Amino acid sequence: MGNNNKGKGGRTERELIKMFFDTNVFAALRVAGSGSTPLPAPDLLVGGMGRVLAIECKSGKKRRYIDPEQIQELLDFAAKFGAEPWVGVRFDREGWYFLDVKSLHVSKGGNYAVDLKLAMERGVSFEVLINR
Amino acid sequence: MGNNNKGKGGRTERELIKMFFDTNVFAALRVAGSGSTPLPAPDLLVGGMGRVLAIECKSGKKRRYIDPEQIQELLDFAAKFGAEPWVGVRFDREGWYFLDVKSLHVSKGGNYAVDLKLAMERGVSFEVLINR
Repeated sequence: MGNNNKGKGGRTERELIKMFFDTNVFAALRVAGSGSTPLPAPDLLVGGMGRVLAIECKSGKKRRYIDPEQIQELLDFAAKFGAEPWVGVRFDREGWYFLDVKSLHVSKGGNYAVDLKLAMERGVSFEVLINR
Repeated sequence: MGNNNKGKGGRTERELIKMFFDTNVFAALRVAGSGSTPLPAPDLLVGGMGRVLAIECKSGKKRRYIDPEQIQELLDFAAKFGAEPWVGVRFDREGWYFLDVKSLHVSKGGNYAVDLKLAMERGVSFEVLINR
């Protein structure tokens, strides 16, 4: 969950897990100790319809930053597990958007960032994500 | 983790996760709140080599029981996620054994059970599990 407030990050992640379960064709879970264990893992893992999605979640009011190590861990984990790497963002009073790593903004300092404008321009909605 | 002592269950699960990571071809994770969330999920999820394993873990000194709901949840989750359902058992001073649900003993009361003898007779070792 990166810099997120733990409680809020957990709440939005549980919301997303429920959305996947409500499709009746995907099973989803939160990873224990994500961000605090030595072994890399995304925030959520979702499986169904022959696909596995590894999702790093970010939520908040405005632009969110993701450090390069976290992105690299997401890519490494997904490659080894056999999952699609996704960044899921949820801005207040907006729905979820899902971006691939290449769609994120990269700052001069090498940090990845995403704001609502970028999410809407380059991200896909939940419905589009699950029907790919 | 069922009836396990939480601390001990967590320790043996982390041991197993490390064993998978040490293969360099599998990525593994613990599921957050397994056994305490309304949405069913196994204790561990492991992916790699084109496979996904959903593992319910049991550890302790002697015979372990698993209630039928937990077994059904494991099977349902695995079917939806696209994972192989496994029960992983770790008895003190013994290594891990992995059994499919059909290999478990079913008591008259409908509970599933596994002891070291059954695990050794019908289970597979870690090496065999990962090389299937």
